[in-house]
Amino acid sequence: MKKFPLQKAFTFIEPGPVVLIGTFDNDNGRFNVMTLSWIMVMDFSPRFALLTGMWNHSCKALLKNKECVISIPTIDISKKVVGIGACSGADTDKFAKFNLTAAKAEQVNAPLIKECLANIECRVVDHIKKHDIFVLDGIQAWFDSARKEKRTFHAVGDGTFITDGPKINHRKLMADKLPAGV
Amino acid sequence: MKKFPLQKAFTFIEPGPVVLIGTFDNDNGRFNVMTLSWIMVMDFSPRFALLTGMWNHSCKALLKNKECVISIPTIDISKKVVGIGACSGADTDKFAKFNLTAAKAEQVNAPLIKECLANIECRVVDHIKKHDIFVLDGIQAWFDSARKEKRTFHAVGDGTFITDGPKINHRKLMADKLPAGV
Repeated sequence: MKKFPLQKAFTFIEPGPVVLIGTFDNDNGRFNVMTLSWIMVMDFSPRFALLTGMWNHSCKALLKNKECVISIPTIDISKKVVGIGACSGADTDKFAKFNLTAAKAEQVNAPLIKECLANIECRVVDHIKKHDIFVLDGIQAWFDSARKEKRTFHAVGDGTFITDGPKINHRKLMADKLPAGV
Repeated sequence: MKKFPLQKAFTFIEPGPVVLIGTFDNDNGRFNVMTLSWIMVMDFSPRFALLTGMWNHSCKALLKNKECVISIPTIDISKKVVGIGACSGADTDKFAKFNLTAAKAEQVNAPLIKECLANIECRVVDHIKKHDIFVLDGIQAWFDSARKEKRTFHAVGDGTFITDGPKINHRKLMADKLPAGV
């Protein structure tokens, strides 16, 4: 897992993969993680919005610590990712249950997940309480270029998931529209 | 293009495809359309959040008319979708330029797009000006089940796009977590 240019970190979220949100749980002093698809890019800087509320145990840690890590899983661990979404950190040590390896982040107390393709350390910069939206700024990104499986997956919402297929390249058509350094 | 159950309409957005946002442009009395990836589900009802501001010509119509149509394109028209994102409705009739067929929506003045796999008529229910976020409620959904090409595509943000690959089925693992009727 090596550092990855922050100005390209939005490219992990823009395609809409299922992500994991890692936090440090002050209640029991352990790491927690939740599965999420309700997330979008807000700015290339990068800035992200995600939707969660007190019905998720992780929400309390986001509100208190104002930080998290967004981790990008690949299709080889899709069962784990679904399992992580089906239980609660309130009564489960998910890192133990799902054999996840927490690695030390550089700027936040929430953990990087070694089994993921990429990790983005984030600070919570706003909470739009009315809509349960958290606004996050990415402050450090990590990428495991040595990993063979790089295909992410996308929740349909009905219990099925779309895996990444072939890429289309329209860089020439979009040359004027691409942000600098991407 | 037939009516589609509204409680399943979020399943078009949750996987994170590139979408088109259609509006009625009061300035010139014609339809307009923009390409967008910065969108997420907020609720199964369905409710969506999208990010845009006055740097997009469509923003003015969203603010004034408080309605739009979210259309889901497939990979066979990916070049058109990129082209739609590379010009402005301020000086271009995009429906004419890209040979799009506008069909009459049922509850909004913005148009359905016949060349798209699905269309969701939406009302703007809030505008979080500080963050350039629009909150939309889906009020009527449409689906073209007769269409052969059903693969959507996902913007990476660097000029490349990920096409839909094979599906993974984890419905049994998620049975307790699925919303009713999905």
